[in-house]
Amino acid sequence: MSDVGMMERPEISSPATLRSVTGEPDHPDMPNADALEARLREIGATRYHNLHPFHSMLHGGELNKGQVQAWALNRYYYQTCIPLKDAAVMSRLRDLSMRREWRHRIEDHDGNSDLEGGITRWYKLTDGLGIDRDLVTSTRGILPATRFSVDAYVHFVRDRTPLEAVASSLTEMFAPGIHRERIAGMLENYSFITDDVMAYFRKRLNQAPRDADWTLEFVRRETKTQEEREAVCDALLFKCEVLWTQLDALYHAYIDGHIPPGAFTPED
Amino acid sequence: MSDVGMMERPEISSPATLRSVTGEPDHPDMPNADALEARLREIGATRYHNLHPFHSMLHGGELNKGQVQAWALNRYYYQTCIPLKDAAVMSRLRDLSMRREWRHRIEDHDGNSDLEGGITRWYKLTDGLGIDRDLVTSTRGILPATRFSVDAYVHFVRDRTPLEAVASSLTEMFAPGIHRERIAGMLENYSFITDDVMAYFRKRLNQAPRDADWTLEFVRRETKTQEEREAVCDALLFKCEVLWTQLDALYHAYIDGHIPPGAFTPED
Repeated sequence: MSDVGMMERPEISSPATLRSVTGEPDHPDMPNADALEARLREIGATRYHNLHPFHSMLHGGELNKGQVQAWALNRYYYQTCIPLKDAAVMSRLRDLSMRREWRHRIEDHDGNSDLEGGITRWYKLTDGLGIDRDLVTSTRGILPATRFSVDAYVHFVRDRTPLEAVASSLTEMFAPGIHRERIAGMLENYSFITDDVMAYFRKRLNQAPRDADWTLEFVRRETKTQEEREAVCDALLFKCEVLWTQLDALYHAYIDGHIPPGAFTPED
Repeated sequence: MSDVGMMERPEISSPATLRSVTGEPDHPDMPNADALEARLREIGATRYHNLHPFHSMLHGGELNKGQVQAWALNRYYYQTCIPLKDAAVMSRLRDLSMRREWRHRIEDHDGNSDLEGGITRWYKLTDGLGIDRDLVTSTRGILPATRFSVDAYVHFVRDRTPLEAVASSLTEMFAPGIHRERIAGMLENYSFITDDVMAYFRKRLNQAPRDADWTLEFVRRETKTQEEREAVCDALLFKCEVLWTQLDALYHAYIDGHIPPGAFTPED
């Protein structure tokens, strides 16, 4: 194959230039749904962000309050984009029953009043950490890498196939473990963390498994070919990278101390 | 203003949720084109990636060959996306003469044969560094943060106003200085760098100023209000963040040694 041929290949199979999956794209043969599920669980066991050193430090009480603030401030941007992402997924679903199923995800995050919903519960965390609410809602001061990673997720579900858009939520399969570890670890290790400010994660202990079960059942049922099953696995890999990259950026800025120009600078 | 009001503000002024400008968004009064240009030069002097510590190390001979390989491999993804970005800009320009002006940028990068063009010249660098050409063209192994940042740039010119899309190229105003420093520094400091492999940067010494002059003249002429001039400044800030974030990710992975799962791992 000529160099030009290789160079142009991504342009042929649109939208491969938006493909955000790097590394380890060689999947095993997946002749059936069980093989797909085994591969998904393997990806989770090796790529999910519970393995990231920033989380070990966060849960183990090794961060100071300013570093925890930076995490909560940046992750707020992710939280606010989840309902936008879910609305974009829903806009791709031509099946009414699927849209009904997906709609409750938006309700979970947005709530039905100012007193409820995932974003409101996230404010309990940022308020509890003493971060100015105006700063939080403005999303000023977050790391550019946070914005680029999260926006990549929104663009992914907008641009890729509906199957891939749905499959990118499969990280929820692995969420309960990290949430349990976070609630216990942060409550035990930080004097500035109370039970009330952890409300977001406590609620997700019930929400995420329901959603994950539905999505796993969906990709098991709807994929018939190796190519489709690989697309599902790649979507999960991509989503793991979205989560991992956010923590890499937090680590570089707030553990190693290389805060980029314009980003939030803690007082301590 | 209620919390909900603040929370929803980004949704009202679409596409603010795609806004990737963080920090330092308060610009001075810019009553005329000279004030705009002064502000743009101030942004360049404080935010352009010539200030990033990774570049000091790269140019000063402080990196090993594997670290230089990682830089060239990742930056290749940026290079390949520049013509896609420029085509997206061109697709927004309704004025024929502007499109003609913009077209030569794509020609600069893509060339008219396999023997020329910016991407071909980039292969001289990656070949000279001994990186497998198939690995380079596949873009496998690049850092997810590279992909997210570069894709953010392509999305920016696709989604924002044509004025902002054009203005995001204003970093070229500051390119000749860094390219001169890079050519001299890398030739002097690395035994594995020869004059031929630096062809890309030598060519850009002439190309970038021509393009920058045109773009600067364009934004000086076409902006009449404070709001328009701030949009131009924000586009430049955004672009500076796209460049800076790529170097932060390289530094974290290849200087501090936190290579994320699946990314290129140098042999040395």
